Amino acid sequence: MDFTIREGQAGDCTDVSRMIMELAVYEKLPEQVKISHKELEQDGFSDHPFFKLLIAEVSDENKSKDGHTKVGYALYFYSYSSWKGKALYMEDLYVMPEFRGKGIGKALLKRVAQVGQEAGCAQLDFTVLDWNKASRDFYHSQGCWDLTTRMGYHCMRCNGAELRCLAGGEGEN
Amino acid sequence: MDFTIREGQAGDCTDVSRMIMELAVYEKLPEQVKISHKELEQDGFSDHPFFKLLIAEVSDENKSKDGHTKVGYALYFYSYSSWKGKALYMEDLYVMPEFRGKGIGKALLKRVAQVGQEAGCAQLDFTVLDWNKASRDFYHSQGCWDLTTRMGYHCMRCNGAELRCLAGGEGEN
Repeated sequence: MDFTIREGQAGDCTDVSRMIMELAVYEKLPEQVKISHKELEQDGFSDHPFFKLLIAEVSDENKSKDGHTKVGYALYFYSYSSWKGKALYMEDLYVMPEFRGKGIGKALLKRVAQVGQEAGCAQLDFTVLDWNKASRDFYHSQGCWDLTTRMGYHCMRCNGAELRCLAGGEGEN
Repeated sequence: MDFTIREGQAGDCTDVSRMIMELAVYEKLPEQVKISHKELEQDGFSDHPFFKLLIAEVSDENKSKDGHTKVGYALYFYSYSSWKGKALYMEDLYVMPEFRGKGIGKALLKRVAQVGQEAGCAQLDFTVLDWNKASRDFYHSQGCWDLTTRMGYHCMRCNGAELRCLAGGEGEN
């Protein structure tokens, strides 16, 4: 099946929002999705975009059973390693279930790597869930490695009331 | 001991580079540091900065035994959650050993949280090494939580020859 990988535009955010929810359902955490396609448009396509998109698209005759031609996406942003310098962080890589096994995920990942290479980025980082063996196997087959298993890195977060408390509480400075 | 937390400038990169190496030694990975203060200056203080700095500074009479007044730093950049929107990623938080236990790390973390709050960020992400119990305890005491332990997230990476291969190899698209 032919497909194309192209940069995402503001007009893609409705489809990306749909696929973000599909991915969250796949990851068993749909209640976690709090942003709409309008927020995606604002945050990704203002003067200071917070992320960039790649879209995987098929022709109309190959559209999904629900009529979609945008069938996968990658969402990434520039990051920085204090050891290696410029880097890229891939927040999401997703292909709709009925379009898997056709090289679309691999092509999206390759294009993300190319974007990084062109910008002089030394590494590409992302996360994967430990129960998601299919994704872990895929990433390992593409030359990616697991910092948590191999080096003991843990992902940490502060959010919600705790983040507000941290920002607003009395400090020593 | 009095200290101040302020935004980092290009002129701080020599000290930040020194402290990046100190942190890498503490993390038992000094051979991993590949960038110089010159690259930090270029990457952090161009028209499109890849990161931002906060510097913890003490007065001259409280300088370190080696004569340093810049005794801690935080390196962070804006990131994005496809579930929650705008976010902040803290790459490093460091305080020189002889200045620990004085609230400097807490003040740096608080300032990072404030920067995020002011920019409308919904979460603050970072990593910690599993053997670094002192840091893990500190972050937990500040309301941060562990995505790896609680939800099974693993940190993944592609770099070096594998990243070049991924970007340059033949794909299906």
